[in-house]
Amino acid sequence: MHSISELQNIIRKSFDPQAFKREPSELYDPIAYTLNLGGKRIRPLLVLLGCDLFHGDIDKAVPAAIAIELFHNFTLLHDDIMDRAPIRRGKETVYKKWNTNVAILSGDTMFALACVHLSQTDPDVLPLALSEFTKTARLVCEGQQYDMNFETLNVVSISDYIEMIRLKTAVLIGCSLKLGAILAKAPPAETERIYSFGENIGMAFQLQDDLLDVFGDEQKFGKEIGGDILSGKKTFLLLKAYEIAPEKVRSELNQCFSNKLIPGEEKINRVKKVYQLLKIKELTLEEIGKYFSKALQSLDDINEDETNKKALRSFANELLKRDF
Amino acid sequence: MHSISELQNIIRKSFDPQAFKREPSELYDPIAYTLNLGGKRIRPLLVLLGCDLFHGDIDKAVPAAIAIELFHNFTLLHDDIMDRAPIRRGKETVYKKWNTNVAILSGDTMFALACVHLSQTDPDVLPLALSEFTKTARLVCEGQQYDMNFETLNVVSISDYIEMIRLKTAVLIGCSLKLGAILAKAPPAETERIYSFGENIGMAFQLQDDLLDVFGDEQKFGKEIGGDILSGKKTFLLLKAYEIAPEKVRSELNQCFSNKLIPGEEKINRVKKVYQLLKIKELTLEEIGKYFSKALQSLDDINEDETNKKALRSFANELLKRDF
Repeated sequence: MHSISELQNIIRKSFDPQAFKREPSELYDPIAYTLNLGGKRIRPLLVLLGCDLFHGDIDKAVPAAIAIELFHNFTLLHDDIMDRAPIRRGKETVYKKWNTNVAILSGDTMFALACVHLSQTDPDVLPLALSEFTKTARLVCEGQQYDMNFETLNVVSISDYIEMIRLKTAVLIGCSLKLGAILAKAPPAETERIYSFGENIGMAFQLQDDLLDVFGDEQKFGKEIGGDILSGKKTFLLLKAYEIAPEKVRSELNQCFSNKLIPGEEKINRVKKVYQLLKIKELTLEEIGKYFSKALQSLDDINEDETNKKALRSFANELLKRDF
Repeated sequence: MHSISELQNIIRKSFDPQAFKREPSELYDPIAYTLNLGGKRIRPLLVLLGCDLFHGDIDKAVPAAIAIELFHNFTLLHDDIMDRAPIRRGKETVYKKWNTNVAILSGDTMFALACVHLSQTDPDVLPLALSEFTKTARLVCEGQQYDMNFETLNVVSISDYIEMIRLKTAVLIGCSLKLGAILAKAPPAETERIYSFGENIGMAFQLQDDLLDVFGDEQKFGKEIGGDILSGKKTFLLLKAYEIAPEKVRSELNQCFSNKLIPGEEKINRVKKVYQLLKIKELTLEEIGKYFSKALQSLDDINEDETNKKALRSFANELLKRDF
């Protein structure tokens, strides 16, 4: 078994941005820039952790780990165009720094590169790995579409929202771990359990992301606080607030989101006040806890020594312990 | 061996647009719309022809054939955004009919779907097929980038242009045939020969496309004639004209492309006049002939009975015999 920091070292070496420099520079510079922004490299780490838990050869899981991170960054690049997001990880997004065409095409190239890397997986596990990866890629696209649909809908149910974040975020976390397990030739029942662990951690992670957008620390979060409120994004917090708000509070929310004359900062503060009144932070933390428990149950069910699960357990704890 | 029309029938059945309808409709409707526009389905036909030539099982090549066509349509969807092209195959393009975000995401989904289909390829040939497909996907992106770069460059050499169309168009034609050959377990030397046949046919095909944009029939071409001239696109025709034009003719060209006050129709007519003066049509046809001969040489070199090559030979003749 490897420690998390050993695995992180392997990943760090694999993402030397120089390795992604190539001609034409107009295409590959934005890719190197994106990969250079860093991020936590959670998904490739999960591929390696999934492989390690089932005693697989870590070196052989590296191409899939790189593939997953490239795919994830491709989705971010394109999502940033669609969401008109100017900042990612504290820096300008690609479409903002260059332009939309550059962001479209360098994103496409990252997807192609992800497939190039995945194709280097051992032939005996490649069919299963590819099938899992491609199924997930499709679901992630569906999730992004639901996310965009929600922008123009007046009413979105919490269950629709939950399904959207499952597709947009959680399935890729599950897939990362499952890929690692597949590469280690774990039995199908075990690959499903580790997938379920990942999917539920992913749900908790995304709900926490919603929470941090309102109650987080801008420096640590790497994005502007209150962005979701300013853009009127239907997050778990907002949908929950609408669900439980008494009439008067509901009209305050409506007022905040329909009156274009309210300055940004005031809008953020007024919505935050509603959230505090309705204890939305506590309710969101409760929901996060629910998914976290489900995740841990799946981890418990895996037939491996508790000592082998330690890395995944501490990873989950670490991930869900972000500062507020 | 199968006839071309038998293979076309198999492809037609595989592209029942109903098969691509799914939820969310906002994502899959543009995909069904795109596939419904038809097009000649050249690339999937080539996958099946490549497989057939080497006596492979056609049914087993169908997933790769679908994958190639989905990938090709994905690139068209995204290229149309980047090129701001309003019309494709005589109908509105997706970004124009819906919007840019829809075109980005449904394009991404077609790429993912392409990979889903390819993953259904027999495990024993999947590694080689996937490696060929993903390498090509990357090159096609590079080709599109060079194409965009050329828009802002003052000087583009004919050899740079040739390399661009090789990447953007020809490698995918070569890859289609090679994939079929790989699935039929043809020897590597043969897969290279059929690739070379395809790549050279692809070159001839693209040069012919440049020609048709100026000298074609709008109804049959499915695009507005003179579009390349209006957008100032550096095609083989224009680059050749600049290469051989005497000073006076060159300044007429410069005038046409720099004076924004010249109405569109006049611009097209004046540039066409220059092309006629310089015999650009004849020179382009000569270049097309060069690639066509190279392609036929590669086909000749393949160690299969001439009768088995008939379908590919007549396909090549058919493709290069478009009306002017």
